Amino acid sequence: MIKKVLDLVSSQQSFLIAAHESPDGDALASTLSLALALEKQGKKVVAYNRDGVPGDFSFLPGYEKIVTEVDASSHFDVAFVLDAGELKRAGSWIRERCDTLVNIDHHPHSEDFGDIYWVDDKASATGALVYRLIKAAGWPIYTDVAVNLYTAVLADTGSFRYSNADGEAFRIAGEMVDLGVDPWAISAGLYESQDEVRLRLLALALPTLRVAECGTFASIAVTLEMYEQTGANGEHTDRFVNYPRSIRGVEVAIFFRQIDVENFKVGFRSAGKIDVGALARELGGGGHHNAAGGMVKGTLAEVEAEVFDRVGQLLR
Amino acid sequence: MIKKVLDLVSSQQSFLIAAHESPDGDALASTLSLALALEKQGKKVVAYNRDGVPGDFSFLPGYEKIVTEVDASSHFDVAFVLDAGELKRAGSWIRERCDTLVNIDHHPHSEDFGDIYWVDDKASATGALVYRLIKAAGWPIYTDVAVNLYTAVLADTGSFRYSNADGEAFRIAGEMVDLGVDPWAISAGLYESQDEVRLRLLALALPTLRVAECGTFASIAVTLEMYEQTGANGEHTDRFVNYPRSIRGVEVAIFFRQIDVENFKVGFRSAGKIDVGALARELGGGGHHNAAGGMVKGTLAEVEAEVFDRVGQLLR
Repeated sequence: MIKKVLDLVSSQQSFLIAAHESPDGDALASTLSLALALEKQGKKVVAYNRDGVPGDFSFLPGYEKIVTEVDASSHFDVAFVLDAGELKRAGSWIRERCDTLVNIDHHPHSEDFGDIYWVDDKASATGALVYRLIKAAGWPIYTDVAVNLYTAVLADTGSFRYSNADGEAFRIAGEMVDLGVDPWAISAGLYESQDEVRLRLLALALPTLRVAECGTFASIAVTLEMYEQTGANGEHTDRFVNYPRSIRGVEVAIFFRQIDVENFKVGFRSAGKIDVGALARELGGGGHHNAAGGMVKGTLAEVEAEVFDRVGQLLR
Repeated sequence: MIKKVLDLVSSQQSFLIAAHESPDGDALASTLSLALALEKQGKKVVAYNRDGVPGDFSFLPGYEKIVTEVDASSHFDVAFVLDAGELKRAGSWIRERCDTLVNIDHHPHSEDFGDIYWVDDKASATGALVYRLIKAAGWPIYTDVAVNLYTAVLADTGSFRYSNADGEAFRIAGEMVDLGVDPWAISAGLYESQDEVRLRLLALALPTLRVAECGTFASIAVTLEMYEQTGANGEHTDRFVNYPRSIRGVEVAIFFRQIDVENFKVGFRSAGKIDVGALARELGGGGHHNAAGGMVKGTLAEVEAEVFDRVGQLLR
């Protein structure tokens, strides 16, 4: 599969690189590492993401290359769609604007799109697949590409903590560090740098902590009123679910986030025993065994009561 | 140096393995990885630490082997002292109770003790040196040793985030993962598992957040009253200083921790520009450029006023 992709790269000249909307670290950094590597090979490259680059990622070398719109008249020899389970999450129009569509991803159940379809659901990150491609091509890895490859793997393995942090993920990281990547600078860029309003919001959210069912489930909540009091918004709640999740013995962690006066988004994380995907589907939502979510109507008290009741039934 | 150590190991039979008091992850896990590896080679091994194994580390394979006292009549062919800048931090008596003393460490400025003195201050962890020893010996690495080597490197590199996380650290981790180590299980054991009362305490502490001098310094505080309200104690405040520290732009983070009715411990962290060691010495305390602390008398309001005034003078 890699050989097919490399043959295509060497015979073609213009490339579009895209990834899924609301991009995370792997989506952005694998886009950038492939874009920068192809540019060094003298290719014409456009890096695209519908939602652009969130501020947290502006430390990524080349981030300013990512465009949010592509001229309607442009056509590409090859489009790479990275880290996107479905083409529409990157942009359905891409299909019509390239000769060959290449789908590179590490998510299971990826929709089977693309003229070349390279999905390895054992890989820790799409960035790991881009790494394999670059190594197979024999291209040198300059620091700008190294920082992006490192970040892609770091981001999708939760800083090398999740179970998908495999031997390859660590070896890629080690090689990038040898090539000049500073782990602290990247970690500080990604995780150690938050707005004061996020901490102010956390200070209001933590007192909502509820622990129930003999300590097996725990929740925290963020309301619209808290946003008003702090000037924070929904983006500042990223990783809040880790607080209830971090309590010893908690099997299911829940994060209630108010969307408007009558709706809460409910996010679930399971420590493994409980299938929160099934739970979320009962609520009309969706997700995986260990991470899922849905939407529930009501006041915080009503929403908590409904969700606690359902989770309690599962745990009993 | 490694060859000297290996010659000694193959010719001798009884070994004491010790590390510094108040042991951290690297001290304990490098002790255990060497002890377990030597036992597999048929050696007689005593693993010792004056302070035993803190509860957080009871997931380490072999932790129950670590004794806090060694019979006064026992004598060892070889004593390994690991990760200890000075012999007395492991136990001065060790010198008299062995034929050959081996000092293995990665700290700079280590006191020059030991018949064999192997200090590599470029190594990420003492565990990395034990790894090199085991590899040079050609011993197989079983899972119990792998978990300890992984933990040693993880702990001393701050989960692969600090700048000492070098290529070797990542490669060791990758090899251990290939040998069956589960990164999530270890990270959960070490960092993701906290008492509910710690979160309750954090919920009371975060609202004390003060940000001053145009966002360049920030503090939070914990009082005796908060302990009473939550049932928490001083041990639960570990890493609380990371909250003010995490705010973008903060140069000096401060943590006020009440010790008794009229005294606060004041901990400082610097992002690099300000020498908080000098600041702490002004207050009668001590420490390094980036991490230091001291004790200040007064109510929270008085202590905050005094410290903010001093820090403000430094930043202006």
